[in-house]
Amino acid sequence: MATIIPLEQPQRRNHTAALDNLAAVVGDDVAAVNQLIVQRMESRVAMIPRLAGHIIAAGGKRLRPILTLATAQMCGYRGERHRKLAASVEFIHTATLLHDDVVDDSALRRGGPSANALFGNEASVLVGDFLFSRAFELMVEDGSIDVLRVLSHASAIIAEGEVLQLITTNDSATSEQAYLEVVRAKTAELFAAACRVGAIVAARPASEEEALRTFGLNLGIAFQIVDDILDYSAEQARLGKTVGDDFREGKVTLPVILAIHRGNEAERAFWKRTLDDSDQRDGDFAHAQDLIRSHNALRDAIDRARHYGAIARDALGMFPDHPVKRALLDIVDFTIEREF
Amino acid sequence: MATIIPLEQPQRRNHTAALDNLAAVVGDDVAAVNQLIVQRMESRVAMIPRLAGHIIAAGGKRLRPILTLATAQMCGYRGERHRKLAASVEFIHTATLLHDDVVDDSALRRGGPSANALFGNEASVLVGDFLFSRAFELMVEDGSIDVLRVLSHASAIIAEGEVLQLITTNDSATSEQAYLEVVRAKTAELFAAACRVGAIVAARPASEEEALRTFGLNLGIAFQIVDDILDYSAEQARLGKTVGDDFREGKVTLPVILAIHRGNEAERAFWKRTLDDSDQRDGDFAHAQDLIRSHNALRDAIDRARHYGAIARDALGMFPDHPVKRALLDIVDFTIEREF
Repeated sequence: MATIIPLEQPQRRNHTAALDNLAAVVGDDVAAVNQLIVQRMESRVAMIPRLAGHIIAAGGKRLRPILTLATAQMCGYRGERHRKLAASVEFIHTATLLHDDVVDDSALRRGGPSANALFGNEASVLVGDFLFSRAFELMVEDGSIDVLRVLSHASAIIAEGEVLQLITTNDSATSEQAYLEVVRAKTAELFAAACRVGAIVAARPASEEEALRTFGLNLGIAFQIVDDILDYSAEQARLGKTVGDDFREGKVTLPVILAIHRGNEAERAFWKRTLDDSDQRDGDFAHAQDLIRSHNALRDAIDRARHYGAIARDALGMFPDHPVKRALLDIVDFTIEREF
Repeated sequence: MATIIPLEQPQRRNHTAALDNLAAVVGDDVAAVNQLIVQRMESRVAMIPRLAGHIIAAGGKRLRPILTLATAQMCGYRGERHRKLAASVEFIHTATLLHDDVVDDSALRRGGPSANALFGNEASVLVGDFLFSRAFELMVEDGSIDVLRVLSHASAIIAEGEVLQLITTNDSATSEQAYLEVVRAKTAELFAAACRVGAIVAARPASEEEALRTFGLNLGIAFQIVDDILDYSAEQARLGKTVGDDFREGKVTLPVILAIHRGNEAERAFWKRTLDDSDQRDGDFAHAQDLIRSHNALRDAIDRARHYGAIARDALGMFPDHPVKRALLDIVDFTIEREF
């Protein structure tokens, strides 16, 4: 199994450290945005901050808002406007997470119970709507029509991407191209928008805004491909992380697409039964992992991710050396070489 | 039963004619907005216009966007900006309808199958998100931060109202005040915003914007109270319209609140069983209607609606005579004296 060496050597680099480092380089802004997020999810309806607080606390490393803060700083911005806009980006992301979990009927998010499991699908839909509206209120307070244009457009594309994903679910005939279109729309557009906002707030020329869009878009594609890989990774299972969600939900992601294309008739029948017909039995997920390994599908999916990572890195070429730039380049590596 | 005369005399006035008349007075703008709506719900993802088209076609009389068109005209506006903004108002309304039906798990809307019944809850959530984003894209194209402020704020209030409604559902102890707060937030705020936008686009002074806000808010409250009344009206049932949805869903609306407050111990036990405990049997809805009638709760709920209607009418006092103004005053009457 020498071909999948990266998968068997977790923590080859200290990857979480890369994100911590970016947050540290960005400095006080991160704490200020966290404070803004808590303040602005307030509502006289107590269930709203309770539910929103659950997912925002459970959730994540604030990668998207940190991208807005970091790109603004790299562009030489010195004010505080980017904080509100970063919070807005996080609210859009959180709203889509809430709606995602309802659509997928997920009981878990990042190992803990999902918001819809705790508060019900109804409340998750509505609090998602609230956070989405609040995101636009924050942008309106900032007052930039350019930012509003970028983020309202990104939001429409995200929704299109989610619908596309719904259509490709349980369809093992999904092409790599169709998969990429889903990934670009549902994930990468918000990364791209978050980075563009950094250039807009710093009033940088269109060429830099476009460079940051390219950076964010390709980083986002790499990020999602790797996320989809991790869902089949034995190493992740060893680390106690959830694997197999995509398989159980019949999502047709890159590792599966590669395995299907490289598989024989019997294998295609297996994928059709488990994914298209949702007829899954004990041992099916382990068999799916075996098929994916036997076709080197994880290794090659990582290579695809590296391709997008390389584009993202090159997009930063036009920016002069800067501690934030170096940290952003590290983030590309972090994103791709996460523990497998 | 002389006290409920209005309920027994359907079509005392030709009410649908009032809305048709307003649409006619507003003129070409209505057709232009309908065209815009069809154009702008387009997406490369075919399911989006299919699902959106279903609810937009099934749905309604375009009261909210017509309010934007009408108030703009009454304010002397002569351009075309109000068309895009009216379409934006309708998209926000449609998005909330889609999410509402998911939250209520409704199988029907206006007598036909609901979007979620036909396309699934997942698609309804996501297409709602798409329409919501598209609404903001339309506002951004228009470019007015004031309009964006009014409609993003209204959207956040609507979401709060929907969550509040979720909390008061299955709670027969809900007060009239709590009910009014739900109605104001989930329905009236969008009416108010739709009317304010008319003044904003016509660049009228703050006093006129405020007057139109008052008009819309109170018209919206009256509209929702009457909607809630119709759900218990025997006459509606006679006309072949759906009744009893609110009862079955355990929604605590004004007719029920009045009946509960005026009822005895046994009646309160009935409401507690049917609404709080969702334990409903054959004949319960008819009994609920009887209790509501015996306490004159529909008649008095209509009186409450008339109170808000009167405030709405007075709010138009500062505007000079104008065909649109006369048609708007008729709409207030139409809203309240709809077929019972």
